[in-house]
Parts: sequence; C-alpha cells; structure tokens
Amino acid sequence: MSDLRIRPASPSDIPAIVAMLADDPLGAQRESLDDPTPYLAAFARLAEDPNQHLVVADRDGRTVGTLQLTIIPGLSRRGATRSIIEAVRIHADERGSGLGTQLIEWAVEESRRQGCRLVQLTSDVSRTDAHRFYERLGFEASHLGFKLVL
Amino acid sequence: MSDLRIRPASPSDIPAIVAMLADDPLGAQRESLDDPTPYLAAFARLAEDPNQHLVVADRDGRTVGTLQLTIIPGLSRRGATRSIIEAVRIHADERGSGLGTQLIEWAVEESRRQGCRLVQLTSDVSRTDAHRFYERLGFEASHLGFKLVL
Repeated sequence: MSDLRIRPASPSDIPAIVAMLADDPLGAQRESLDDPTPYLAAFARLAEDPNQHLVVADRDGRTVGTLQLTIIPGLSRRGATRSIIEAVRIHADERGSGLGTQLIEWAVEESRRQGCRLVQLTSDVSRTDAHRFYERLGFEASHLGFKLVL
Repeated sequence: MSDLRIRPASPSDIPAIVAMLADDPLGAQRESLDDPTPYLAAFARLAEDPNQHLVVADRDGRTVGTLQLTIIPGLSRRGATRSIIEAVRIHADERGSGLGTQLIEWAVEESRRQGCRLVQLTSDVSRTDAHRFYERLGFEASHLGFKLVL
C-alpha cells in the first residue's frame, strides 16, 4: 500500500474536498463547483476555530478522503466534552480500501487525545452500508437524528 | 402566564441546570451533584467559545429550562453553517407548559440570525414523546444518530 497521511486540510484541498462531497447520491444536489466563494468563506471560518478540525487523507499527494471533527464542551454527563464527526467522504477510487476505517479511527483517536468522552455522528437513514460500517467500528445507533432546513 | 426570559446561562445557574439534567430517566445515571468541579470547568470552556450558547429559561427568577446551541461552520451544502441543539431539559413543574416549544423556537431563531441553513439534533430512540415533539416543530427524522462512548 502506498503512503497515506491524514493531515489538516489546506485551501488548495478545497476543490478535491468539494468534488468528493458532490460525488455522492445525496451530495450531488447540494454542491456546486461553479462558484468557490462560499466554500472559501466557510474554510476561513473553520481555520480560525480551534474546535474545528477539517482533515484530508492524502495518498502520495492526492486528496482521497475527508472528514470534519468538531469538539464540543458541555455540562451534561458530568461536564463531558464530546466530538461530532461530519462530512465523511472517500474518493470513489478508494472505496473498499479501508481508508474509511482509517479516517474514523483517526477521528476517534484525536477525540480521545483531546479528552472527549463521547464521539457522535449522524448518517442519513438511506445509507445502510454506512450504518453497518459504523456499527463494525463500535458505534451504537442509539439515537434518531432530526434536521430542520432553514 | 408569568414572565419568561431566555438568557445566557451564568455560573449561578449551574446547580439548577445539573438538577434538570439529572431529573431524567437517562440522565439520572450520568450526573452527580456531589462534586461541582467538572461542571464548573465545562462551563468555563463553554463561556470562552463564541460558537457555544448555553441558555436557560428563567421564569420570575427561577431557572426552569435549558439547552445548548452550537454553531458549526462547514464546507458541505455550499459552505453552509449549521447548528446543533444538545441537552434540552425542562423542569418537571413546567412540562406541558409550552416552554419546550419556546426554547426550541428560540434556538431556531438564533440559528437563523447567525446565518445557519440547517438545525440538527439527536434524540435517544427511547424518547418517543420527544420525537413527536420535534416533528410537530418541523424537524424531520431523516438520520440515525450513532454514539461511541470512550
């Protein structure tokens, strides 16, 4: 297997990240590569927030995976800090390679390093393969995830 | 109806907030009022993070409800900022009073004011009354919520 590195995303990764977000049955309707402006603005907000970790998986200089890890302090569970994983995407060429597992394991390890006591994420009810994947990694589907689009 | 105000939590609200977190079938096992230290430390972290909004509902000087709103920037959905609602609790004396609706409506309005395009939350699968409550407020149970305890 060639060299894989999980590292913080840089602005030059944005086109590859957005391409992965768009290359998805649900993401295809939501993303647009035509205008990079809103993505650049969002990247700037992420970069200045110490509780945000947007990372990419880099294989031999190619951006082949991404996820966003958010660290959330809180009072509940005796003041437990938790983390939330969002926007997990694996390049089509890399699916089945174990890269998804490596990315989630990175996020779990980083959460532990930062003192989190809980890692959580939501997955669209239609993504049944993803549900099995997270259960294999020890996650429990204990909650319903509600969304309200504004 | 007496005067209700939704306002940022202050350190003096911590005992009342923790009491509400504990007065719950799931929370009872997770919280402990014996030692305030971890709650005070978590409160300090929340207070210094501009993307965290821990609020209480105050009725005539009594702390009768709480929730935590987190603002999360991100690249997906064309750089959409989203918000996450956590740790919603209503004092036992106030259940059925419409206070839950007022708190969630506050969170949705504040999310809109901050430019969020999505509000999300998770609810334990056992809380079927809460699920109906969120659906009545326009939320869609489109996701499964996965948790991993560290």
